[in-house]
Amino acid sequence: QVEKKITVLPGDGIGPEVVAAAIRVLQVIAKRYKHDFQLGYAAIGGAAIDQFQDPLPIETIEMCRESDAVLLGAVGGPKWDNNPAELRPEKGLLRIRKTFDLFANLRPVKAFPSLLDASPLKREVAENVDLMIVRELTGGIYFGEKNRSEVEASDLNIYTREEIERIVDNAFILAKLRKGKLCSVDKANVLETSRLWRQIVEEKKVQYPEVIVEHNLVDSVAMKLITNPAHYDVVVTDNMFGDILSDEASVITGSLGVLPSASIRSDNFGLYEPVHGSAPEIAGEGIANPAATILSVAMMLRYSFNLQEEAAEIERAVSSVFNDGYFTADLVKDQSRALTTDEWTDKVIAE
Amino acid sequence: QVEKKITVLPGDGIGPEVVAAAIRVLQVIAKRYKHDFQLGYAAIGGAAIDQFQDPLPIETIEMCRESDAVLLGAVGGPKWDNNPAELRPEKGLLRIRKTFDLFANLRPVKAFPSLLDASPLKREVAENVDLMIVRELTGGIYFGEKNRSEVEASDLNIYTREEIERIVDNAFILAKLRKGKLCSVDKANVLETSRLWRQIVEEKKVQYPEVIVEHNLVDSVAMKLITNPAHYDVVVTDNMFGDILSDEASVITGSLGVLPSASIRSDNFGLYEPVHGSAPEIAGEGIANPAATILSVAMMLRYSFNLQEEAAEIERAVSSVFNDGYFTADLVKDQSRALTTDEWTDKVIAE
Ligand SMILES: CC(C)[C@H](C(=O)O)[C@@H](O)C(=O)O
Ligand SMILES: CC(C)[C@H](C(=O)O)[C@@H](O)C(=O)O
Repeated sequence: QVEKKITVLPGDGIGPEVVAAAIRVLQVIAKRYKHDFQLGYAAIGGAAIDQFQDPLPIETIEMCRESDAVLLGAVGGPKWDNNPAELRPEKGLLRIRKTFDLFANLRPVKAFPSLLDASPLKREVAENVDLMIVRELTGGIYFGEKNRSEVEASDLNIYTREEIERIVDNAFILAKLRKGKLCSVDKANVLETSRLWRQIVEEKKVQYPEVIVEHNLVDSVAMKLITNPAHYDVVVTDNMFGDILSDEASVITGSLGVLPSASIRSDNFGLYEPVHGSAPEIAGEGIANPAATILSVAMMLRYSFNLQEEAAEIERAVSSVFNDGYFTADLVKDQSRALTTDEWTDKVIAE
Repeated sequence: QVEKKITVLPGDGIGPEVVAAAIRVLQVIAKRYKHDFQLGYAAIGGAAIDQFQDPLPIETIEMCRESDAVLLGAVGGPKWDNNPAELRPEKGLLRIRKTFDLFANLRPVKAFPSLLDASPLKREVAENVDLMIVRELTGGIYFGEKNRSEVEASDLNIYTREEIERIVDNAFILAKLRKGKLCSVDKANVLETSRLWRQIVEEKKVQYPEVIVEHNLVDSVAMKLITNPAHYDVVVTDNMFGDILSDEASVITGSLGVLPSASIRSDNFGLYEPVHGSAPEIAGEGIANPAATILSVAMMLRYSFNLQEEAAEIERAVSSVFNDGYFTADLVKDQSRALTTDEWTDKVIAE
């Protein structure tokens, strides 16, 4: 039995709906295992801009600071698309990552056999995929100095040894717990940051003799993630490459709607959110797919609370519901067979 | 009837073999249309390192300077993999691009129906794909200032207005000649260079009212290139994003062996090369697929010499040979049906 405080940030669009569904699942777990999860709700993104003129208000930061983990829905929508940079919903995301030093973004991509008809890849290519992209999330070109004049613009891609060491350690540890394979992705034939990155991976690997390491160039990985995704176990890379490759890899499963993510720091505090966006076009209809958020809750149990069994139970339930042929609207051709968000969540809870 | 000088840089691995095949096709065109193509051979890459201790010797630069176009095979191989940066084969590539200001890298990706079994994508996703990635090739993070100290490393991503304007113009002109659609790819929600890029595309589009323009974020395009590649016509982006996306898009066709490329500057001088590498593991066996290099010669005729009919004739011949079911070893399961490089080239010439 554990006692944990969770800050819930429903956000925009379908965010509140999928978060509500995931919280229902979390409460079933709490009851069954006699855990005490205390939930506090706060604003982020567009919702926070409307209420506080700030995509990440100080009230939200304070509540997160007193929590053990954060569950986020999604941010963004056309309403705020033309706002100045500081008042855009995604600025809330970038700031919460930096404020809480959430340097490790974990993006698992696992094929559910019953969803593979929806994948753009051939079944034999996509099946058996079970990889995890580990993206550095608080450094690199996202946060380096930016300059702009009349005649030019620049962004500095910069990494310290320390920033690289901690994400690489993180990836090695994950690889050890998984299939023991690590692919480090860089552009060492061109970038100085990549050469430092590659050197650090080489230094670290002696500490993890059970992990098989390969270095690969980002352009080559962009191909192989599609031609042979089953090759990969853990893939570690910088912020910019990780942004591109993790989204690219997400297409393998056939649906963004089933992909969770975790953004964590060294003490296990973490932010958990579905990979998909706020999907404003279907917001409020009760038809959004809650699988990604439910699986994000499973990641929270595993990585922030070290509740392995509970996490595995949620993952098993989601798998079974898909195997039994139950899907939300995004995953069926014949819409009359689609379950609503709540109906689908009921199935998961029943499992 | 035209008279043109072409510098031929066979390079390493299978480079000399595929170049020889493409030259045979070029000579057939010369004879038939009574053109005069004067060929001069020079060294680049590993071959040039071995002979001159320089991946791009001054002799090669001089010969290229006196030519109307350059045909390149491929560079690189395990022999030079551990050389210092300045003595690596790919440095020859980076330097020839910069020396001749080859700022526009054109990477067409077109599906050949008879090859789609080899594609990792489902046939219905990959068929009808006919897109062109236009990558800025002489600026950005590839050539910005690099720094390295004990504790950190950095690369500067920098673009001038002029550099962006010329590549964007180039892409608009291509879009006008093709299907009239342009997708500009950036990361404007994070990068200052991307915001300048997006602004310039917005400014330019009034000059090309017949082209429909969309802006899209690089992470989103990394997904959509796989889920719906037929959506795209011309895609324009910076050097780093272009490197990743053009290699990613290359998997659609099922084979790197059929993809040509052009790297050109404003006065039509250009470097033409297959997208694939030097494949040292099959070098010297006479089994390499020459299609990409033959199609690169077609691009040379089209973009550097403005010989549209001749270019189209080569492209038609290659298409027919594939449609008739003739393939090199990389494209058939049953190796006893594979044609050698020369046999396959004979089929193209016969067409
Ligand atoms: C919204 C954007 C700034 C963000 C990023 O690029 O990090 C998003 O694409 C993501 O991957 O979470
Ligand atoms: C060899 C390397 C420097 C080069 C690049 O990244 O430009 C290659 O990947 C390419 O795309 O031509």
